[in-house]
Amino acid sequence: RPGFVPTQHPHRRHNPLTGRSILVSPQRNLRPWQGAQEAPDLGERLAHDPSCYLCPGNARAGGVANPAYAGTYVFPNDFPALQPDTPAPANEGGLFAITPARGEARVLCFSENHSLTLPELSQSALEGVVQAWVALQAELGQRWRSVQLFENKGAMMGCSSPHPHGQVWATDFLPDEVEREDRAQAAYLSRLGRNLLLDYAQLEVQSGERIVELNEHWLAVVPFWAAWPFETLVLPRAHAARMTDLDAPRQSALASLLKALTTRYDNLFNCSFPYSMGWHGAPSDAADTQAWLLHAHFYPPLLRSATVRKFMVGFEMLGEAQRDLTPEQAAARLRATPSAHYRHR
Amino acid sequence: RPGFVPTQHPHRRHNPLTGRSILVSPQRNLRPWQGAQEAPDLGERLAHDPSCYLCPGNARAGGVANPAYAGTYVFPNDFPALQPDTPAPANEGGLFAITPARGEARVLCFSENHSLTLPELSQSALEGVVQAWVALQAELGQRWRSVQLFENKGAMMGCSSPHPHGQVWATDFLPDEVEREDRAQAAYLSRLGRNLLLDYAQLEVQSGERIVELNEHWLAVVPFWAAWPFETLVLPRAHAARMTDLDAPRQSALASLLKALTTRYDNLFNCSFPYSMGWHGAPSDAADTQAWLLHAHFYPPLLRSATVRKFMVGFEMLGEAQRDLTPEQAAARLRATPSAHYRHR
Ligand SMILES: O=P(O)(O)O[C@H]1O[C@H](CO)[C@@H](O)[C@H](O)[C@H]1O
Ligand SMILES: O=P(O)(O)O[C@H]1O[C@H](CO)[C@@H](O)[C@H](O)[C@H]1O
Repeated sequence: RPGFVPTQHPHRRHNPLTGRSILVSPQRNLRPWQGAQEAPDLGERLAHDPSCYLCPGNARAGGVANPAYAGTYVFPNDFPALQPDTPAPANEGGLFAITPARGEARVLCFSENHSLTLPELSQSALEGVVQAWVALQAELGQRWRSVQLFENKGAMMGCSSPHPHGQVWATDFLPDEVEREDRAQAAYLSRLGRNLLLDYAQLEVQSGERIVELNEHWLAVVPFWAAWPFETLVLPRAHAARMTDLDAPRQSALASLLKALTTRYDNLFNCSFPYSMGWHGAPSDAADTQAWLLHAHFYPPLLRSATVRKFMVGFEMLGEAQRDLTPEQAAARLRATPSAHYRHR
Repeated sequence: RPGFVPTQHPHRRHNPLTGRSILVSPQRNLRPWQGAQEAPDLGERLAHDPSCYLCPGNARAGGVANPAYAGTYVFPNDFPALQPDTPAPANEGGLFAITPARGEARVLCFSENHSLTLPELSQSALEGVVQAWVALQAELGQRWRSVQLFENKGAMMGCSSPHPHGQVWATDFLPDEVEREDRAQAAYLSRLGRNLLLDYAQLEVQSGERIVELNEHWLAVVPFWAAWPFETLVLPRAHAARMTDLDAPRQSALASLLKALTTRYDNLFNCSFPYSMGWHGAPSDAADTQAWLLHAHFYPPLLRSATVRKFMVGFEMLGEAQRDLTPEQAAARLRATPSAHYRHR
């Protein structure tokens, strides 16, 4: 009987950060697709759109007008999911457990230019985005335990404006996913005396098989346990527990890694590649941050082309995540894309 | 300062079955929606579609022709995510944990009639679907630990054929979600000596606030911890750990509850309501099943209308689920729909 071949045989992989499993079924990629076709985003846009809530000078949904900003611009979300001073509910507990949720939500425009996306920003404009993230973590981290920096990109990812922007939801609690990562990293440190993600980064750099981008200070890897087809994990190569631990050279190297990674994403299917991405770091109030490594997750939905996505439904919602190509195949495909952006060659 | 009002103030609820949290932000429902518009499924279809892989007599993607079936029809998935005899991978463990995954996947056509959906089937046709589920659990449960019965409905939920059908993925392992529910129910039993979901069903029947449908043997409730806007949980009112524990009266009462529930779903926005639904029950090899209660989850994506869905992206992927209306509001809206199907009044 022939042996196990990862690109042919279904198997399960396990995410050490969250404890979750992923069913890998690479042979599934052969099936014909007769389901939904998505509208590809070809990225053709005006530099200033008079109907955009986020462009400089325009009025927002709440009525307030944006200033004539250039570079990044931060403002409070007009429809925040969190408020700083919500009254606490009475908690019945048991099967009806309810707890307070307080916080703040802001929007971060990445650029005044409506037509650009991260890979199309200049190195210095991208450094401005990284600096804005650092500043938001520094400010909001004084008041809130968790500062979730993220970007939803593309209509497919529930983003309602193509203007380049991200969000920050800061909370007085650790959201589930962050709490799980917190526990896993703490357990690894106490068991092995080392940092989980630094160990992982080193092993991936040695192997190279799943690396997509690498520079002096950062790597982007399709994690061994990736759930989304072209998911990546962005890691610093030396310890940093939070955004605010990054010095200028590491901030600048991050900007260039993000440019390289998102360029490959766009080049994979020649479209403005949709995703949700965001940063995880040590809770703002953690005194000992040895166990934690700052990192970003990119969760992009596309599977086969600009119009065919992976649906995490059915078995995935009721059982566990399932993927149709191996992480190694995904990394190889991303590495094989040109390094210059398809719209600007 | 005024007190806590659940329909106005953000708060967190906690799912005792999975340990997950949900951020409830009911005030968010006021924000304008400028994002993606979905194509509504108005349910107009031929009774037999010559190009459908699932209609009686037609050839499938694999080339095999379907028989001239009437009622339900089960066949092996032509592109299965699982195979019965995959070789085992060598497990490096640590940060590269990989384990075998074996199983079987089948497709279950609910009806020969291409144009119908669950709420449009007759009571006896729906009883046929329930009997097919029972038979699949009985047969596959002899060989596999977990038998995941589910339905993806609608193109929005990654379903590639509108022909009424569900799937079965049987596995030699407990998928993550089932394992979490297994642990939570076992812990509740050992702590309190009672069945978690039977306790919950009783409290919900007493309160009535979140009940959508109720009959002698079953209830459908928007759970206190619902993540999706109109999520429901279908529970038996007396103990049953698996599909195969249901006698004929309970099977028949289930058919009528499902008809009533899915009719309300379609009537909510006057469209063929998309969802993923599926059954969870005790692992096939569990000798003691006291802790478990058989149940179905319905996870429907629509939020405001037939064309506006909830996106579980960004904060939801990186942090935790977030919802824009309270479960109590969702239940009241479902209860307020007419009980006769909008296409057949
Ligand atoms: O099996 P299908 O209908 O081709 O595919 C659908 O259901 C599967 C099981 O939920 C998912 O893994 C796929 O992403 C989805 O498109
Ligand atoms: O805040 P937005 O862009 O209006 O909304 C988007 O991002 C939020 C945070 O990830 C999600 O909760 C919404 O479902 C999504 O549509």
